[in-house]
Amino acid sequence: MPRYKLTIEYDGTGIMGWQRQKHGPSIQQYMEEAITAFCGEQVTIYCAGRTDSGVHACGQVAHIDIARDSKPYTVMQAINYHLLPQRIAITKIDEVDEAFHARFSATGRHYMYRIINRPARVALEQSRAYHVPQPLDIARMQEAAALLVGTHDFSSFRDSMCQAKSPVKTLWQLDVERIHDEEVRLYASAPSFLHHQVRNLTGSLIYVGTGKWSIDDLIAAKEACSRPAGGPTAPAHGLYFMKVDY
Amino acid sequence: MPRYKLTIEYDGTGIMGWQRQKHGPSIQQYMEEAITAFCGEQVTIYCAGRTDSGVHACGQVAHIDIARDSKPYTVMQAINYHLLPQRIAITKIDEVDEAFHARFSATGRHYMYRIINRPARVALEQSRAYHVPQPLDIARMQEAAALLVGTHDFSSFRDSMCQAKSPVKTLWQLDVERIHDEEVRLYASAPSFLHHQVRNLTGSLIYVGTGKWSIDDLIAAKEACSRPAGGPTAPAHGLYFMKVDY
Repeated sequence: MPRYKLTIEYDGTGIMGWQRQKHGPSIQQYMEEAITAFCGEQVTIYCAGRTDSGVHACGQVAHIDIARDSKPYTVMQAINYHLLPQRIAITKIDEVDEAFHARFSATGRHYMYRIINRPARVALEQSRAYHVPQPLDIARMQEAAALLVGTHDFSSFRDSMCQAKSPVKTLWQLDVERIHDEEVRLYASAPSFLHHQVRNLTGSLIYVGTGKWSIDDLIAAKEACSRPAGGPTAPAHGLYFMKVDY
Repeated sequence: MPRYKLTIEYDGTGIMGWQRQKHGPSIQQYMEEAITAFCGEQVTIYCAGRTDSGVHACGQVAHIDIARDSKPYTVMQAINYHLLPQRIAITKIDEVDEAFHARFSATGRHYMYRIINRPARVALEQSRAYHVPQPLDIARMQEAAALLVGTHDFSSFRDSMCQAKSPVKTLWQLDVERIHDEEVRLYASAPSFLHHQVRNLTGSLIYVGTGKWSIDDLIAAKEACSRPAGGPTAPAHGLYFMKVDY
């Protein structure tokens, strides 16, 4: 039975996140329904990282096993057809070995967080970027971010519901960049992340950027190894799951 | 009675365009209702360029006269409050002279057109960019675009309903740029445009980019001075009204 690796893009607005939920639509549900509509099989889809409600993806990766014998491109086009009119699309398909697992074979994950940084209300990017009206000091945020790169106990930036065995994670990259006058982006890469880690780090770095926290405050928060010491959780709608390494 | 110049951003998705319509919501209607909700006055708003249904704006400009005496910033915040939850926001307000008119004082207008250029279906930018699956030859498009800059009879790229007195217009800029692997942008600037001119030029340049037309075909289309000779009208949802000069 062929196994397919799917690269998936979606707009998380109004969706309960990746995982199936009783109280609303999920990416997993839409994907599995579209796959069944194509091949008639009951399929379980496995993803590299289960995104929260409202989080977007440019490069989520998932795998499926389907018996129906078709060319990969046909499989992609057919599932994409059945996904309409949802804002979910497979952008790439590859036939892979049965040893491939979207989650367990992943060696790296890359996220982006978008901030619209201007006093005025946001219309165009309302559900696609977080609005921070106070000016952000990007140089200070970048300086603080650099101190979080590497292997640390990230308990202060870990959701209380996080199921990971250890709070110790290795951040490969945490960069803050002003894209243009009104937009700031954070880039975070790691082999894997704790639950809400990127959003909690972003909330804490925004504290540094607005001057509510000094860089020392951020380090003290990290060293407290306790979630209440960390900054707020930045909202889901600014977060994008960009890419998975294998 | 103070006159205010408003810079306005909006997501045109699901909206009938700028101008009031009987059959659906318009930016003008939402703006005028929000202004009345703030100051209790019946106000007519005048804009620099009436965008079509589905067209977005980052920098539409409009003016209003209101009797209520408030600081400009208060006026902006109050109207923005009453615009919620619509994806429309005033991003800048200036008190201006009564000689100022958003449409008649405008000396230049700037548009952007976004194309997602990849084989795979588009999810995230579905209502925000036009999907062209065939590879686009940007160098050829740019070469063709350069030949349209300047003063020409644009009858072949003018909507049949266009009310302008003359089909002769001066294009200051028409540039085609590949932003990244999957996105192409067109930038068009002129003192003023004919109805659908940017979308018709874009549709014709896409013909050049896919190889359906040679550059000579494009020039022949222009010189025919007849709308049926021009290329198709690119869809509204890729178009952004970026900026107005005064």
